[in-house]
Amino acid sequence: MSENTESPQLLCLRNFRVVLCQTSHPGNIGSAARAMKTMGLQHLYLVNPQHFPDAHATALATGAADLLDNAIVTSTLAEALTGCAFAIGMSARKRGLSHELVNVRTAAAKAIEIASSQPVALVFGTEMSGLSNAELDHCQLLAMIQANPEYSSLNLAAAVQIMCYELRMTALAAQHIADDNLNLNTSPEYATIDSLEAYYAHLEATLLHIGYLNPNAPKKLMERLRRIYARSRLEKEEVNLLRGILTLTVSPRKHNKY
Amino acid sequence: MSENTESPQLLCLRNFRVVLCQTSHPGNIGSAARAMKTMGLQHLYLVNPQHFPDAHATALATGAADLLDNAIVTSTLAEALTGCAFAIGMSARKRGLSHELVNVRTAAAKAIEIASSQPVALVFGTEMSGLSNAELDHCQLLAMIQANPEYSSLNLAAAVQIMCYELRMTALAAQHIADDNLNLNTSPEYATIDSLEAYYAHLEATLLHIGYLNPNAPKKLMERLRRIYARSRLEKEEVNLLRGILTLTVSPRKHNKY
Repeated sequence: MSENTESPQLLCLRNFRVVLCQTSHPGNIGSAARAMKTMGLQHLYLVNPQHFPDAHATALATGAADLLDNAIVTSTLAEALTGCAFAIGMSARKRGLSHELVNVRTAAAKAIEIASSQPVALVFGTEMSGLSNAELDHCQLLAMIQANPEYSSLNLAAAVQIMCYELRMTALAAQHIADDNLNLNTSPEYATIDSLEAYYAHLEATLLHIGYLNPNAPKKLMERLRRIYARSRLEKEEVNLLRGILTLTVSPRKHNKY
Repeated sequence: MSENTESPQLLCLRNFRVVLCQTSHPGNIGSAARAMKTMGLQHLYLVNPQHFPDAHATALATGAADLLDNAIVTSTLAEALTGCAFAIGMSARKRGLSHELVNVRTAAAKAIEIASSQPVALVFGTEMSGLSNAELDHCQLLAMIQANPEYSSLNLAAAVQIMCYELRMTALAAQHIADDNLNLNTSPEYATIDSLEAYYAHLEATLLHIGYLNPNAPKKLMERLRRIYARSRLEKEEVNLLRGILTLTVSPRKHNKY
């Protein structure tokens, strides 16, 4: 049987969005679009691109110019992640954080599983410095391409190409083993990024209320708490459960109704 | 142990040569050199390049300009393959030939094995039409990147990037360090099982106190909360942080000391 993008396992590639943050060179946006389309991905999000739309981007996209036409430009990363159940931050280096860091092949396996039912984002930082810590805080997983430590400077579009290639390879492999794996249809409904943000806001307000959080320096504590929950990939119902605790933390039930 | 290009398994990457045939755009030669170096390959051969050396090639090579300086220009493919024990032709499409056709991952496995002792060539055709049949006749194996059949037009440097990436991943796996978990050498101090149990007990008592937990049926809620934290593999300091929140949940700071 010939490979067919319409087969159910490859359709999950349509559930990915590539999010490029503050891209400096429009040519890289075009090349990234081309890289995506060769691997069957189609949704491009641009957070504050320096120049877009741009003729150079269109020229380098060649046959993938439709992805540029349909690209969604946002002013914040949070906006670009709305509706996503999982966000993978791409990093060229180890970071001094306790984010879970895996290679792109492992990341692809996790991502494909979730993308069978919910949108997943691949988040790329600027050409010069990659993702900021604030941007990484929106991601649940950090993925790294295992490059030459003496020269690890991959071009942005080259990094997009490798990540999308790994996704396609993983989806193709899943296509061959789907019949064997009866667990696929029991994958939980993960919380969306925006509902996670709402939870973190609720958590922060609660910690201020009980006097645990220093309002003059809230940043670090919240970052550490975000990392704990990012690692556990919260399901939708679990977020409801945790928010229920916060609600009663502020207003305990005076008369226990049980 | 940190990754080291000098380890014996990665040294085999030095036994590869990337052979670009009749390349039209010098920028692609520069981008290909960059792609090679990020993955630890260094030997570039150019068969009848249309423009070389060229300032555009040098600009796109960035920190890999040394590969261009050392590139060997030949007038025939046979010359570029002199001394090689194996040559893999890269093809974007199936060819009406009796060449063995495999995907690049499979090709990488065969190539790495041979490259441990002898030079291996990766042969790329022109941007427009790929390798000619005459050029393919010099190759022992045909390798294909499994692209979107509706748009399989990878940029030349992108194809070089993927093939070199697969070689590096294969070499790393042979080295037994392509571990899923790149955090190994910075592994944090995880909480002990007993400190986790103490945290769960503290959490349960707190949830009873605020009236969230039904004392007649506490089991299920606690199980669900345990699962959230089990998945995030809590560190020792994170447990302290979470217990600090519980302490203040029961006894908020009346006079905020900040």
